[in-house]
Amino acid sequence: MKRTGTLYDDAMEIIRDALHTAQPHEAVGKAIDEIQHERGFGAALGEGHKLVLVAAGKAAWQMAKAATDRLERFDQGVVITKYHHVMGEISGMTCYEAGHPVPDENSFRATEAAIQAVSGLDKEDVVLFLLSGGGSALFEKPLVSKKELEDITKQLLASGADIVEMNTVRKRLSGVKGGRFAQLCLPAHVYTIVLSDIIGDPLDMIASGPAYPDSSTCEQAKTIVEKYGIRISEDAQRLLERETPKTLDNVTTIVTGSVKQLCASAAETCRRLGYEPVILTEELCCQAREAGSFLGTIGKSHSKDKISTAYIAGGETVVKLIGGGLGGRNQEMALAAAPHIAGLDNVAVFSVGSDGTDGPTDAAGGYADGNTATELTVSVEEILDNNDAYHGLQKTGGLIMTGPTGTNVNDLSVVLVRATD
Amino acid sequence: MKRTGTLYDDAMEIIRDALHTAQPHEAVGKAIDEIQHERGFGAALGEGHKLVLVAAGKAAWQMAKAATDRLERFDQGVVITKYHHVMGEISGMTCYEAGHPVPDENSFRATEAAIQAVSGLDKEDVVLFLLSGGGSALFEKPLVSKKELEDITKQLLASGADIVEMNTVRKRLSGVKGGRFAQLCLPAHVYTIVLSDIIGDPLDMIASGPAYPDSSTCEQAKTIVEKYGIRISEDAQRLLERETPKTLDNVTTIVTGSVKQLCASAAETCRRLGYEPVILTEELCCQAREAGSFLGTIGKSHSKDKISTAYIAGGETVVKLIGGGLGGRNQEMALAAAPHIAGLDNVAVFSVGSDGTDGPTDAAGGYADGNTATELTVSVEEILDNNDAYHGLQKTGGLIMTGPTGTNVNDLSVVLVRATD
Repeated sequence: MKRTGTLYDDAMEIIRDALHTAQPHEAVGKAIDEIQHERGFGAALGEGHKLVLVAAGKAAWQMAKAATDRLERFDQGVVITKYHHVMGEISGMTCYEAGHPVPDENSFRATEAAIQAVSGLDKEDVVLFLLSGGGSALFEKPLVSKKELEDITKQLLASGADIVEMNTVRKRLSGVKGGRFAQLCLPAHVYTIVLSDIIGDPLDMIASGPAYPDSSTCEQAKTIVEKYGIRISEDAQRLLERETPKTLDNVTTIVTGSVKQLCASAAETCRRLGYEPVILTEELCCQAREAGSFLGTIGKSHSKDKISTAYIAGGETVVKLIGGGLGGRNQEMALAAAPHIAGLDNVAVFSVGSDGTDGPTDAAGGYADGNTATELTVSVEEILDNNDAYHGLQKTGGLIMTGPTGTNVNDLSVVLVRATD
Repeated sequence: MKRTGTLYDDAMEIIRDALHTAQPHEAVGKAIDEIQHERGFGAALGEGHKLVLVAAGKAAWQMAKAATDRLERFDQGVVITKYHHVMGEISGMTCYEAGHPVPDENSFRATEAAIQAVSGLDKEDVVLFLLSGGGSALFEKPLVSKKELEDITKQLLASGADIVEMNTVRKRLSGVKGGRFAQLCLPAHVYTIVLSDIIGDPLDMIASGPAYPDSSTCEQAKTIVEKYGIRISEDAQRLLERETPKTLDNVTTIVTGSVKQLCASAAETCRRLGYEPVILTEELCCQAREAGSFLGTIGKSHSKDKISTAYIAGGETVVKLIGGGLGGRNQEMALAAAPHIAGLDNVAVFSVGSDGTDGPTDAAGGYADGNTATELTVSVEEILDNNDAYHGLQKTGGLIMTGPTGTNVNDLSVVLVRATD
């Protein structure tokens, strides 16, 4: 069965636009445009001053490629990504592959090259710093031995310290984290473009914030070490006394390709298609099935409204595995909404993962409308109890197929309500 | 600990107003005002024509009391409620107590009295028909023997037929259901005021719709009987052939005191307090804990908005019992939202049951703000895993106490976001 109709077409257009916006290439290009716009006419990046590129993270290669496609020249460039992630030469760039999720010698060597590249710059010079997920391991200059860093990390993990506590300690053992890389770029200005895959975009958490002011303090770091009884060397002890920068005057940060942008793009397309967009949240994280039910009841309650509305949620829900079927969180959400909107011809609920693969399936997500529940021969509840949303949606033509998109900025879920009159 | 502050005060005002609006007395009064307004000046209810009151349901006595307080005289009145629910004499009314949830001889006798009261009226005369939950059993005139009605009901229950299928059959075995009571009132006009406790207000379902056009058909009824192999008498077989009214020209229906009104009242108060209200849904029915998480992330995502907003949801969530603690669905919702809004001083999430009792507790619901999660010594997750929201909220001053309210139109949940500037 193939789904058709206005709501379905609208959904596909919203998804297409949103996923396009979230692509690293598109997202970085857009961010560079913003920087150019901010700098104003005549002060374009790379004109009359040195321009250095540093890219670190799993999407570093794509981000660097996008930047070199957009800007005519860089004076120097260092790209650090994980193994097998360099897709070819980029003119003017030195590309490194290194260890992830555990940093290795290649991580340190590449990071050293990046530090060299930003050394000795002038006040007029510019560093374009491109950061994506995985940067924490790939971009690292330990101030203690690799062995001790590993030992402290292991102790912290075993102690039950949370991720914030771990980073508070580890930032102080690093020469580039907690804002220190931005200090190394001084007096040059750093434009950081962050391709975020962390809900809520906590900028001091993404790659441990090499170019972002650090809000944690030495005092906190020492308390954590004492609280969990972490054994550290005297050298490390001294490092805990060295404060990280609390302000950074030479940094401008732009978050791009994040779930926020996914939602903003969806809102824009919805508006163009005649729906008044309401962004509910960009940090959805509850159970997929329950979120789907919630969205379904939003659709139902507004089905008689006089204006067309789209309710948009971004984030990453979780699936509770209780059955042996096939599916993914986005498929569960869409299917869970189906019974609530059953029989309505003007409401649809859909959800997609921005990476194009939802769970262990070849679908990006799911689409449900007023016919979905009635077209099934078993109840939606039964299908979801078996975690088999894939086959349920397959029967009703509700699988959304995009193929892998090469990006991952969480999921997009939308309720479309077309006013009837 | 006692919670204070603007957000808390706002929450309490919103709750007070909403619960007041949902009271049967207030809700019926408001509906009568609407009827008077619709009839226009000079045609007030009871002036120059006969006015008959029929009230059936668990809140029948309170509804009849409200009507007689508002309107000067009734020519006749029949009130049918469950045992121990008549709270005293009402001038001009005959009050009956009868069986619920299983109808008994008193149900039939009282219903017969109601039918007598609406017989022989003129076109100008008016029947005020007040309906509340439980009306299905209390207001009944079986067209088959009580014994056969019970037998068919039992067979249908055992067969796995759903509630819609059951009602499709049973409406045809009743002299008052499926719109037939309104036919008996002809040529008089019937104003039905429904105090709804069913999510979505399906008017043909509340008390099986004595004064509402029936959308089910004889054909469907016969199919259901065949499908489930229900054994029925020849008399009953003949009754299945008699169609219920598909249109009723002499009926005006007003739903009052429903969850819709609870949400509308909350929206009104929010607007007065400076919040732009957004009603998300009036039919929330997912897991309490997950709904709370969803609402929490809505608050978090909007915490930096430039305008103050209130996100409102009505409905009835469910609690998954996995621990041995104390709590209720509204308390779970509020507490589950707490971690998501932790640290924010301009966001609060609260939820209350309109009956004033949430789960097996003396609280009506719960309130959480940016301090709730941090004031707890154990994690919210742990508390919720033990279904112990009551004690968690008790520690943080987040229990909402209203006492029993005497009404039940589901729950009200609100996210308050006060814009900071």
